[in-house]
Amino acid sequence: MIKVGIVGGTGYTGVELLRLLVRHAGVELVVITSRTEVGRPVSALFPSLRGHTDLAFSVPDVKALAGCDVVFFATPAGVAMRQVPELLDRGVRVIDLSADFRLRNAGDWEHWYRMEHTCPALLDEAVYGLPEVNRTHIGHARLVANPGCYPTAVQLGLKPLLEAQLICGESTIVADCKSGVSGAGRGAHVGALLCEAGDSIHAYGVEGHRHQPEIEQGLSLISAGTINRLTFVPHLLPMIRGIHATLYARLADPEAISLPEIQTLYEKAYHDEHFVDVMPTGSLPETRSVRGANHCRIAVHRPGGGDTVVILSVIDNLVKGASGQAVQNMNIMFSRPEREGLDLVALLP
Amino acid sequence: MIKVGIVGGTGYTGVELLRLLVRHAGVELVVITSRTEVGRPVSALFPSLRGHTDLAFSVPDVKALAGCDVVFFATPAGVAMRQVPELLDRGVRVIDLSADFRLRNAGDWEHWYRMEHTCPALLDEAVYGLPEVNRTHIGHARLVANPGCYPTAVQLGLKPLLEAQLICGESTIVADCKSGVSGAGRGAHVGALLCEAGDSIHAYGVEGHRHQPEIEQGLSLISAGTINRLTFVPHLLPMIRGIHATLYARLADPEAISLPEIQTLYEKAYHDEHFVDVMPTGSLPETRSVRGANHCRIAVHRPGGGDTVVILSVIDNLVKGASGQAVQNMNIMFSRPEREGLDLVALLP
Amino acid sequence: MIKVGIVGGTGYTGVELLRLLVRHAGVELVVITSRTEVGRPVSALFPSLRGHTDLAFSVPDVKALAGCDVVFFATPAGVAMRQVPELLDRGVRVIDLSADFRLRNAGDWEHWYRMEHTCPALLDEAVYGLPEVNRTHIGHARLVANPGCYPTAVQLGLKPLLEAQLICGESTIVADCKSGVSGAGRGAHVGALLCEAGDSIHAYGVEGHRHQPEIEQGLSLISAGTINRLTFVPHLLPMIRGIHATLYARLADPEAISLPEIQTLYEKAYHDEHFVDVMPTGSLPETRSVRGANHCRIAVHRPGGGDTVVILSVIDNLVKGASGQAVQNMNIMFSRPEREGLDLVALLP
Amino acid sequence: MIKVGIVGGTGYTGVELLRLLVRHAGVELVVITSRTEVGRPVSALFPSLRGHTDLAFSVPDVKALAGCDVVFFATPAGVAMRQVPELLDRGVRVIDLSADFRLRNAGDWEHWYRMEHTCPALLDEAVYGLPEVNRTHIGHARLVANPGCYPTAVQLGLKPLLEAQLICGESTIVADCKSGVSGAGRGAHVGALLCEAGDSIHAYGVEGHRHQPEIEQGLSLISAGTINRLTFVPHLLPMIRGIHATLYARLADPEAISLPEIQTLYEKAYHDEHFVDVMPTGSLPETRSVRGANHCRIAVHRPGGGDTVVILSVIDNLVKGASGQAVQNMNIMFSRPEREGLDLVALLP
Repeated sequence: MIKVGIVGGTGYTGVELLRLLVRHAGVELVVITSRTEVGRPVSALFPSLRGHTDLAFSVPDVKALAGCDVVFFATPAGVAMRQVPELLDRGVRVIDLSADFRLRNAGDWEHWYRMEHTCPALLDEAVYGLPEVNRTHIGHARLVANPGCYPTAVQLGLKPLLEAQLICGESTIVADCKSGVSGAGRGAHVGALLCEAGDSIHAYGVEGHRHQPEIEQGLSLISAGTINRLTFVPHLLPMIRGIHATLYARLADPEAISLPEIQTLYEKAYHDEHFVDVMPTGSLPETRSVRGANHCRIAVHRPGGGDTVVILSVIDNLVKGASGQAVQNMNIMFSRPEREGLDLVALLP
Repeated sequence: MIKVGIVGGTGYTGVELLRLLVRHAGVELVVITSRTEVGRPVSALFPSLRGHTDLAFSVPDVKALAGCDVVFFATPAGVAMRQVPELLDRGVRVIDLSADFRLRNAGDWEHWYRMEHTCPALLDEAVYGLPEVNRTHIGHARLVANPGCYPTAVQLGLKPLLEAQLICGESTIVADCKSGVSGAGRGAHVGALLCEAGDSIHAYGVEGHRHQPEIEQGLSLISAGTINRLTFVPHLLPMIRGIHATLYARLADPEAISLPEIQTLYEKAYHDEHFVDVMPTGSLPETRSVRGANHCRIAVHRPGGGDTVVILSVIDNLVKGASGQAVQNMNIMFSRPEREGLDLVALLP
Repeated sequence: MIKVGIVGGTGYTGVELLRLLVRHAGVELVVITSRTEVGRPVSALFPSLRGHTDLAFSVPDVKALAGCDVVFFATPAGVAMRQVPELLDRGVRVIDLSADFRLRNAGDWEHWYRMEHTCPALLDEAVYGLPEVNRTHIGHARLVANPGCYPTAVQLGLKPLLEAQLICGESTIVADCKSGVSGAGRGAHVGALLCEAGDSIHAYGVEGHRHQPEIEQGLSLISAGTINRLTFVPHLLPMIRGIHATLYARLADPEAISLPEIQTLYEKAYHDEHFVDVMPTGSLPETRSVRGANHCRIAVHRPGGGDTVVILSVIDNLVKGASGQAVQNMNIMFSRPEREGLDLVALLP
Repeated sequence: MIKVGIVGGTGYTGVELLRLLVRHAGVELVVITSRTEVGRPVSALFPSLRGHTDLAFSVPDVKALAGCDVVFFATPAGVAMRQVPELLDRGVRVIDLSADFRLRNAGDWEHWYRMEHTCPALLDEAVYGLPEVNRTHIGHARLVANPGCYPTAVQLGLKPLLEAQLICGESTIVADCKSGVSGAGRGAHVGALLCEAGDSIHAYGVEGHRHQPEIEQGLSLISAGTINRLTFVPHLLPMIRGIHATLYARLADPEAISLPEIQTLYEKAYHDEHFVDVMPTGSLPETRSVRGANHCRIAVHRPGGGDTVVILSVIDNLVKGASGQAVQNMNIMFSRPEREGLDLVALLP
């Protein structure tokens, strides 16, 4: 049994981790911390967990956490970097769902997150936890930086095109992304109220979103440095879960490849990936088809047979975009079957 | 392995049965029928099932169904009663999610469903599939009439009060019930459009709803004939899943019992019931706390310490209110652990 | 032109007042205050008002407000009572959308609102601003206490029954009320987040809600003291605007009156009331049929011809339940046509 | 008074026309037709109109319509073209909200709408009713083809860039568009059910949508033939009203122009347009800021100061995207003030 701790369990990625881990046969949940809810049973805050766990929130405490095999951080930016070094020193492995270790370059991180990074030395060691790109390194990692939700949907959507060097390097890829409100977290802010976000849509972060450098770093790695930039515009939608990435890329040589060939390229690329589902040509994936499940569903289009390929990529931002992917990483790190605890059917309708 | 067939798998109770059964370790899904989708893979209609089943819809055919141990009917009223007798004759057990066998009195049924009942003789044999009331009979049943969604929430909410004869017989119980739109099914009708049912609420069936005689029959049985009527007003809400029953009952002798005693009564009544969760006094159950789960959560109130008890009872209409309860019944009928395949954590948020 | 000031214009009743007043031909908006948004144009906070007003928020200042003919308070409980006396002294009339002057009894008010009332002497003078009950007094009032949203829907729904003394005095009226989330205001609290209140429903305030004494005070007045209590359970719904009150009352003498006679009673009672629409018998009013409009729509039912009458009453909580009613009161106070600025068609769909 | 008829008043554009026209001081509503609802009062189908009109639906009848000054067609494709010629012959002017007269080329129309055009000769005469492009011609038109919802949002969003020839002709403009479900109409189809479209998003029409040739025809005209194509991907969102067009265009000469200059270009272009609101640089327009209003709000962005300009353009698909624009066209045709009956404040929240 893997002994598991969770730091910061009162947010949406926290309760989603709990939903997955209480039913994971290989996991023993040992400790879950929250400064604000100390002593309160987890199931009092989240009645969905009544009957599934007796755990109560405890004070964040290195000693208690040090008894774990792995600790998940489901905390705001800037928290994990302060606590991770000590846990690593004590032999605890860490999966950080926050952004603290996602960017390799400390300067970039400090620019986007507007604080000093307290352990930049760990940025080199941290493994970016996108299993479909990085599985081998994840297996040996002490510290996994779990990807952001948008970066997961965008990178998985573009990976086969990038690896095959099919995209025109001079053009700009457009990633027009749509997210449910749970991506904004469980914090009380006006913009996430039902009366503000309901029955409406708006873009945000057009002039710069923290996921942009993370995506660009990933695209660069996957494309061997040939694609280093994109235009990324996220939108807030009146729904709870789900990310829909609509990806536009110009083909470097439109004559050289047909749509069925691109489809085949995708099917081959993800043939052995259980959690990436390349749908038949012409499909229009709905975010609800992955609601509560750890899958990414992808469909490939080429409108009018033109120069532009349109990739549709959907995930549940709280599962494949956060907590499900974190559990997938844990399974890899501890040599468990990768699907263990993740064999969930999406809730439809 | 229980060999299972499903008749009418294109609606919401059908896809919900599939969601539960594809992950049930004791079940082999053998056949699923649909007149309109013959030959189409189930996962083409419901992409949430991609990777979980290879089954395709087939023509409703007694021979194929006769090879099953149990057949679920997820059909409109009037379909099951035409096919059930032949299946029973061939030794197949049946769980009917429709209303065909819920009322004991054929005349009542014909009045409310406005058609002739083709096998009234089976109404006596059919067992009303509310396990918390009828578990023993369900175990031996050939034919189980799976309860309606409102009747499940209302009966479970009132059962302890009724059994203890605490309700004033002369007064009228009020069941003010609120349902998500999935209760209306997957049929294309204007009233269930997002633009009609969205961002609005209205009552319906105030002058008479088909679930009323079913509820009254149940109240009468549970109360040993002392309570035979109620005022029942259902409402349509802008949400997908969930039923919230707000139940108002006057105490026969308000002086004779205190709120803590009523709370204890409920806790004892459901102490051994895994799927009925009596919450602490003062709780305000949310339907989302059972979204996708087979639980009924109940809270007991007595506003101002007055004569009226208010019981709040929530279920997921597609799970405990339909397909989950059907699987629970199957487990009982085939001596499987009652929770098998139903140990689901609600999807929150 | 009526010179109008608004205190506390950053909440939902504030912006709704603005929506109505910027198009009111008899009104000149002079000042709108907010401590938190001083200097910011109103249309910067609410882009829906771009092009409709150039006003900016200013510091709450008695001098500026003293130049108005009438000041609306759209503030949390406890604010108006501190500022109203001075404004009245300066000859300014006041319409208070908060609860500060709704209860006649200072002790009751202090019990429910948990603070000391700073000007209890004004409670006698304040006129309860439900025009369909109190029109004459409103016309002469210096200080109008604008009713709460639930109280408006419940009192209008029950008034004809109460006035005709048809309800059994010993029984308890049940008011099962459902509200959209805007009733909770524009404050940032977790329970009103789209991810918390979305796709779910729950009851609240079952053990006591501040609108209960207001409703009971109103029922008592309307019924000449024969009905002084009710059971009131509000519910939070996943929608933005709208209140649906489902009202259950037992007839004192069921044999003495028929449903058509009750229908006629309602039609006569509201024959001259432009903003109360008694729908045909059997109607099922939707809250969206009054979305953005100042109407209350009512339908009368008597299920199964029994002892219990069911009244369905719907309003837009921000219009007839708050700002629209406040404008209606202003029109009456200043001898303008009662419908002026309120002749709005509901937004459907 | 303009005598107005409406053909096909039972859909969402029909009821929206009614909402606007019953309050239009210069209009007399004379006749509204519907084959399915003959004899039924309009307010029985749409209770939001109770008290606003006594009109009942009548059989579509040329004689009755011939007494009108103008007839609106709010009908499915293929209906208007059969009735318009006779009305024009009788001197009635026509505003067609359907697509029958939007494309100049009959062959294109027949390709996209898959039926024969019955009066191709009128395609030349028909004036495309986008006032901000075509005001003068609209004033004299006998037949106005009211633009589609997506084409309105996209053309208004791109017009200043196109007229100034700032877009790189070789690149592809991307129009990633998001629509509420009311764009799908009031017909009963499964995809528009609350349980299908709720809490989810998906793209559609990626391989070709009927609005694409309409948009391309418009871009070509506005750009003097320099831009003739775009990549257009519409998405269905879980909301009732609203279109959000996110427009991506590469600058032909990025060095030659700055973002403030582009902002100024937009502000000048729409300086005299009451219904087009160019928001300050950096704004993120929400669709709800135009809910129920006839405005298009536009914001200009240039992420990272790069080659790509991002324009955000929002409308209410039923108002500026359909019925509001139709009324605006009527006002122009009959020399009424262009804002008459359209001076609506958006419903927020």
